[in-house]
Amino acid sequence: MAKGIVARSEDYSQWYIDIIKKANLAENSSVRGCMVIKPHGFAIWENMKDQLDKMFKETGHVNAYFPLFVPKSLFEAEEKNAEGFAKECAIVTHYRLKNDPNNRGKLIVDPEAKLEEELVVRPTSEAIIWSTYKNWIQSYRDLPLLINQWANVVRWEMRTRLFLRTAEFLWQEGHTAHATKAEAIEEAEKMQGVYADFVENWMAMPVIKGVKTESERFAGADETYTIEALMQDGKALQAGTSHFLGQNFAKAFDVKFMNENNKEEYVWATSWGVSTRLIGGLIMTHSDDDGLVMPPKLAPTQVVIVPIPKPEAMIDEAAEKIIKALRSKGISVKYDIDPKNRPGFKFAEHELNGIPVRIGIGKRDLENGVVEVARRDTKEKESISLDGAVAHIEQLLEDIQQNLFNRAKTFRDEHITEVNDFKTFEEVLNDKGGFVSAHWDGTAETEEKIKELTKATIRCIPLDAKAEKGKDVLTGEPSNKRVLFAKAY
Amino acid sequence: MAKGIVARSEDYSQWYIDIIKKANLAENSSVRGCMVIKPHGFAIWENMKDQLDKMFKETGHVNAYFPLFVPKSLFEAEEKNAEGFAKECAIVTHYRLKNDPNNRGKLIVDPEAKLEEELVVRPTSEAIIWSTYKNWIQSYRDLPLLINQWANVVRWEMRTRLFLRTAEFLWQEGHTAHATKAEAIEEAEKMQGVYADFVENWMAMPVIKGVKTESERFAGADETYTIEALMQDGKALQAGTSHFLGQNFAKAFDVKFMNENNKEEYVWATSWGVSTRLIGGLIMTHSDDDGLVMPPKLAPTQVVIVPIPKPEAMIDEAAEKIIKALRSKGISVKYDIDPKNRPGFKFAEHELNGIPVRIGIGKRDLENGVVEVARRDTKEKESISLDGAVAHIEQLLEDIQQNLFNRAKTFRDEHITEVNDFKTFEEVLNDKGGFVSAHWDGTAETEEKIKELTKATIRCIPLDAKAEKGKDVLTGEPSNKRVLFAKAY
Repeated sequence: MAKGIVARSEDYSQWYIDIIKKANLAENSSVRGCMVIKPHGFAIWENMKDQLDKMFKETGHVNAYFPLFVPKSLFEAEEKNAEGFAKECAIVTHYRLKNDPNNRGKLIVDPEAKLEEELVVRPTSEAIIWSTYKNWIQSYRDLPLLINQWANVVRWEMRTRLFLRTAEFLWQEGHTAHATKAEAIEEAEKMQGVYADFVENWMAMPVIKGVKTESERFAGADETYTIEALMQDGKALQAGTSHFLGQNFAKAFDVKFMNENNKEEYVWATSWGVSTRLIGGLIMTHSDDDGLVMPPKLAPTQVVIVPIPKPEAMIDEAAEKIIKALRSKGISVKYDIDPKNRPGFKFAEHELNGIPVRIGIGKRDLENGVVEVARRDTKEKESISLDGAVAHIEQLLEDIQQNLFNRAKTFRDEHITEVNDFKTFEEVLNDKGGFVSAHWDGTAETEEKIKELTKATIRCIPLDAKAEKGKDVLTGEPSNKRVLFAKAY
Repeated sequence: MAKGIVARSEDYSQWYIDIIKKANLAENSSVRGCMVIKPHGFAIWENMKDQLDKMFKETGHVNAYFPLFVPKSLFEAEEKNAEGFAKECAIVTHYRLKNDPNNRGKLIVDPEAKLEEELVVRPTSEAIIWSTYKNWIQSYRDLPLLINQWANVVRWEMRTRLFLRTAEFLWQEGHTAHATKAEAIEEAEKMQGVYADFVENWMAMPVIKGVKTESERFAGADETYTIEALMQDGKALQAGTSHFLGQNFAKAFDVKFMNENNKEEYVWATSWGVSTRLIGGLIMTHSDDDGLVMPPKLAPTQVVIVPIPKPEAMIDEAAEKIIKALRSKGISVKYDIDPKNRPGFKFAEHELNGIPVRIGIGKRDLENGVVEVARRDTKEKESISLDGAVAHIEQLLEDIQQNLFNRAKTFRDEHITEVNDFKTFEEVLNDKGGFVSAHWDGTAETEEKIKELTKATIRCIPLDAKAEKGKDVLTGEPSNKRVLFAKAY
């Protein structure tokens, strides 16, 4: 167990905070609920963003940028069909500070610089984007619009947690417009698939694809597609959502188009987003009591080389050769020649920071034609021949990526428990945690009642849920498929 | 002259607006002073950002992210040494909306959700970043900190102009911390060099490197390094600035470190930024009465292929071959098979959008083994053998990049006029425009007086200004070098 990191078994919440602190990922700022994403944390986000952006472009999307501020009246238009929309937002009411005439060196808000209409810092951009799309869409020829935005958004959360829930966070939000319902549904499903692909194959986080129940849907959506992951403490994490918005926003903002038959129709919409919250999920899925564990595909540094005990000509030469060969394969490598610290200290540091592979190069080993290769995920060490080191490491990075996924998937699968009575339901939730697969009678009342009693929510109705006659776990009413309950972040 | 674009000679301001509109780069939003950057405009920004980010990383910088909001009190700390700081900012005073009890369907700001301390939407991030650095820096071992942020910022500008001056804009802001004055100055100068390299070699915009006079400096800076470009209407554009901040922010936020001699010292600082304003400069430097002209290195689409008059097997085959070969060289190509429009219409569209190279492929030409290649910058067309087309185009893109730079540099050089008396100074400014190179007595009073009389400001004291005895163009007081005056955006 690393210094300054409490064990997961002892205090999972504190462990999470300790990892973030010790690995220099992020910290709370002097602004309530807003975080500073430190260079190490931001490098992870950049890698995630680059890959997601590539996947969005490969599926035909383009990026654009819409204003940070949304006039209050646009929320009123939206409000009509989105009663449930959260109103905890940052609100700009004035546009000027002035020197305080009564208090030298102090500033006050200039009361004469009050805005006629208040501006809301975007909590999400449907309102501003659909009020813009209105001018962009006249005919079916203008459709589809397949636009994504990378942006910061603000929601005035009362209880915040680094990455998982912060007042300001970074995200992407796709907003698409379509001529037909079928095409919009296809888009929403496609983006759920893109998210699942990214989260599983890049973040090595297994997810369950499903749809939300009506009460867990995004307020303006007709259907919310979700991917749900499981953390090591048995709590679920919603990792990404994709919404089929029907014609709700088109109606709120009066966005119509002439179809191919020259008939006016409302436009069909989707929106979909993932955020810096994913970094929280990444940490909680793979890391251990020694620090961060990073899947190689997203690690800012994939390989670190440590000279043992310190740099010298022979070691430098061997290191340079390996570095050059690895870099030519697109693998990021750092050579840690910091003279201030000894190898043992460096090993602990690199483990803490989650670097997937460490190469130790010592003089005696070199004379025997070998180097020591350690993998972060299992802590295993091997002596590898110098000649074969590069090929070995290339393969090892793939193995680690796969192993992290397999390990998380085994854990996740072991934590899906089929339950048929409410007593067991409560026991499993409290003792074992994870997803509880149970029958539900389909009513919001039962869903709410179970939430009150257990704090568990329906995470999703899995897309692959099979038809199965059963009885609701609480009410005994008939049901024809199981849904997944869990306590969640 | 393209439809919907007024000639530059007729109305330069309107021409600029027309280009942005017709090339679908950006538009005003429903939020005062905030723009929507449309996909075409944003693709240009992405290309600029990618290249700048690469250059920042190559010079040792890392990215991070700091909060959007700055508590008002942090501005008060800064205010002490930055009296001139603009106070036109967006100010968040409340954190909740609620339904208006007296007006169904309307929202009001909840008076009970008033913030104890107002938050300012960052107009720049020195305050929030230096209040954070305070906790990151204890010893010389923590230095230098070389951090950059890509972000949106807001300044409540009264008169806005798409890209050039908007309330919200996108930018990058580097904020570095150093142990010595010399190192900080070196950093500020290095980043001015990076900006000049980017703007000249990627944007094909020639710039003059210089320093600002004291009255034109950033409020918290001891020295502001600038790069100044010249637009086609003879007005200057400040394209990027890099500030040596001395110990001003370290003192305002009490950021000290133990130096190698175990003595406590204030930290030395720099900051540097470029913004979406550069897109405005790019448009105004190269474009013409037919639309946008893009330097190939930043063009979202570098080559477009138009089948003449429409796609058919033989043409498709030739096009596919060229596309494959160009893409393998990293050149972006679009094959315009839109059946709705005829070639002439497409040619005009692609000219309007500034695609550097257009290839027309017709059946008869193909039978003769040639294709037609047109360049956007000069409008020249050539018949090129099919076999040599790819190599020709690769070279042509380089030629266009170079030609745009040369053309802009010739124009710029022709518009630097040495002037020794005030009557000529005024005549040159009014009749010819451009930079006026004149002697200045070094006083803020004279600078201000000239500004009042002519609207021209001192754009910079060029780094390469040679020692030359002379007399101030207005006062006749002695001077030992020329500075550059101009009217500016």
